[in-house]
Amino acid sequence: MDSTTRPTLESVAQRAGVSRQTVSNVLNAPHLVRPETTDRVRSAIDALGYRPSAAARQLRTGRSRVVGLRLEPVQDGINGAVLDRFLHALTESAQARGYRVMLFTAPDDEREIAQYGELLDTADLDAFVLTSTHRDDARAAWLAERDVPFVTFGRPWSAPGAATDDHPWVDVDGSAGTRAAVEHLRRLGHERIAYLGWPDGSDVGEDRAAGWAAAMVDAGHDAGLLRRLHARVPDGVAAGAQAIERVLADAAPTAVVCASDSLALGALTVGRSRDTPLAVVGFDDTPVAAAVGLTSVAQPLTEAAHRALDLLLDQLDGTGGTRSKQVLLAPHLVERASSRTP
Amino acid sequence: MDSTTRPTLESVAQRAGVSRQTVSNVLNAPHLVRPETTDRVRSAIDALGYRPSAAARQLRTGRSRVVGLRLEPVQDGINGAVLDRFLHALTESAQARGYRVMLFTAPDDEREIAQYGELLDTADLDAFVLTSTHRDDARAAWLAERDVPFVTFGRPWSAPGAATDDHPWVDVDGSAGTRAAVEHLRRLGHERIAYLGWPDGSDVGEDRAAGWAAAMVDAGHDAGLLRRLHARVPDGVAAGAQAIERVLADAAPTAVVCASDSLALGALTVGRSRDTPLAVVGFDDTPVAAAVGLTSVAQPLTEAAHRALDLLLDQLDGTGGTRSKQVLLAPHLVERASSRTP
Repeated sequence: MDSTTRPTLESVAQRAGVSRQTVSNVLNAPHLVRPETTDRVRSAIDALGYRPSAAARQLRTGRSRVVGLRLEPVQDGINGAVLDRFLHALTESAQARGYRVMLFTAPDDEREIAQYGELLDTADLDAFVLTSTHRDDARAAWLAERDVPFVTFGRPWSAPGAATDDHPWVDVDGSAGTRAAVEHLRRLGHERIAYLGWPDGSDVGEDRAAGWAAAMVDAGHDAGLLRRLHARVPDGVAAGAQAIERVLADAAPTAVVCASDSLALGALTVGRSRDTPLAVVGFDDTPVAAAVGLTSVAQPLTEAAHRALDLLLDQLDGTGGTRSKQVLLAPHLVERASSRTP
Repeated sequence: MDSTTRPTLESVAQRAGVSRQTVSNVLNAPHLVRPETTDRVRSAIDALGYRPSAAARQLRTGRSRVVGLRLEPVQDGINGAVLDRFLHALTESAQARGYRVMLFTAPDDEREIAQYGELLDTADLDAFVLTSTHRDDARAAWLAERDVPFVTFGRPWSAPGAATDDHPWVDVDGSAGTRAAVEHLRRLGHERIAYLGWPDGSDVGEDRAAGWAAAMVDAGHDAGLLRRLHARVPDGVAAGAQAIERVLADAAPTAVVCASDSLALGALTVGRSRDTPLAVVGFDDTPVAAAVGLTSVAQPLTEAAHRALDLLLDQLDGTGGTRSKQVLLAPHLVERASSRTP
C-alpha cells in the first residue's frame, strides 16, 4: 500500500510537531503528556484520520482477536459440506463479535499441532477451534497443557473423566438424530428398519448407530434381527447401494436409516429401481439431500458455531462464570419425499 | 494464554539482566549493543525459546503475510461448493508460501468495501482475493484507488479497456467448457442439443451460453432452432426440471447442456423418468455430479487458486515482471453415465 494513502505515527508526529514517542505516549500513557501537547496530537490524529494499527494495538493489549481453524481436506464433498457450513457460520458469528477467523491446513493431528506452534509464534492467534475430534485427541491435550484457549466442535469421545477431556466443547447428539429417524419411519408404518453405518472405530458412527439400535429395541425387536438389519460399510454412494442390496436380500427391510447422505443416496438409487418401495433417511441434510428429495437429520450448525464462540469468549474475557463448558445440541429431522413411500 | 508458558521480551530482559530496550536493540539494531551484551541476550533468548511476536515483526516489516477473502453466503449448497473448494485450494497454496487466509463476510459489495476499510485499519492485511466479479465492480475500483494489492477470481466483465479493469485476475473459460460439452455430445451422435441457462444479466451465464451457441452454429444449426432449444431460468433443481419439460415438448432435443449442476440435476430427473433417453451435461463438477453420475464441466480450482496467489505475490514482492496479470484457464469435461444414453 502506498504510504501516502495511510496516515502513520510518523505523519501524526510531523503534523503535531512532536516526536513519535510523544504520539505513542498520547495513545498509551496520556498521563505522561502535558494537556496542550495532548490536544495538539489529538487534532493531528483527527485531521489525518490516523488509527493505530492492529500490530500496535496488539502489542499493547496482547490480543489479536483472531481465532484459528484448520480447514479439513476436501473428501467426497457430500459430507465435507457440513464442516464448510460450520465454517461459514463461525465466520459470521465471530465477525459479529469483533473476531476474525484465520485458516490453516494440516494433513494429520501431528502436523496440526505443529501448525498451532507456528501460528502462536508468528501470527499471535488468541484461540483455536478444533473439528473432527476423536478418542485420545493429542491436539486438545497439547493446547490444554499450554493454556491456549480453545473449543472443539465434537465431543472428546474418551472414557468419561479422562483428565485431558475436561475442555469446552459443542457437539450435536447424533444418537438422538437416528432415534428421531426411526420414530418418524415407525409413525409411517415401518417396522423392519435397517441401518447403514460405518465400520468399527468411528465414535461418531457408533453414536449414530446406537440411536437406531436403542429405538429398535424400544419397538420390541430382538438383537438377532437387529444384527441382520445393520450393515457396516465405508462411506460412499456405491458402498451404500451395495450394502442395501445385501440387507434387502437377507432381512427384507421396508425402510433404512443411514449414517450419512452419501450412504443414503446409494440406498435411494437402489430403492427407486425396485418394485417394492424402500423409505430412506440420511444424515447431515447436505445440499444433495435437498436436491434429490432425501429426508435427512440436520445438525444445527449455526447454533453450534455461535455456542462455540460463546465458549471461546468466556475463556478470553473471563466471563461465563458458572455457564456449562459442554454443550450438546439436538438435531432435527428434515422430512422430504424419500421417506414417504406409497 | 498464561504468561508463564511463553517467554516475552520482559522475561528475556530479566534473565539477561538488561533492559527491554536492550533486548529490542539486539533484535532490531544490533550495532547499538556491545558484543558481550549481545551474547548475554542471545543466550537468554535461546534458553527461554523466545521468538519475537508477529505483532513486533509486523511493526518492523509493515507486512502481516495475511490475505483477506470474503466468504460468500451459503446458497443452494450445490453451486456454492465451487467457492468452498477454491477456498480450500487458496488456503493450502497460501500456507505453502508463508501466507495465511483471513475470512470475513459481507452481504453485498458496499458492505464488503466497508469491511476492506475496517480490515486495513484494524487487522493489517497485506492483500485481498475477490470472488464473484461482475460488471462495473465497485470493489476492484475501491482497492485500486488505494493501491491495495488484490486479485480477482473472475474477469472484470466490463467493456474492454475500462480504466478500472486493468487489474490482475484469474478466471476459467466457461465458453470453452460448454463448447466442449456440445462437441462431446455430437461425438456421441446427438444433434438437437438444448441449453438450460440463467436469465439475462449474468455475465458468467452469457459466457457459458455463448460457448453452446457457437458450437451449435458451427454444427450447422440455424438461429431459429437455437432459440427454441435455449431456456433461460433461475438456477435450481426444480427450475431445471420444468424448463427441460418445456423444451422437450417444443423442440424435441436428445441431449441438453446446462449452466449448472443444479439445473442439470433437474433435467436428469426428468430424463430418467421418460422412455426416450435424454443425455445431460452439467457445469462445475460439484459433489452432486459425482454422486449421481452426471457428466459435468470441471473448473481447475487448485490451479486457479495457485495462479491467483502468484499474481498477489508478484504485487507484494515486486516480482513477476513481464508475467501476464490476467490468466484464463481452460476447464475440462468429466464424463460420467448421464451423457451416455443407450
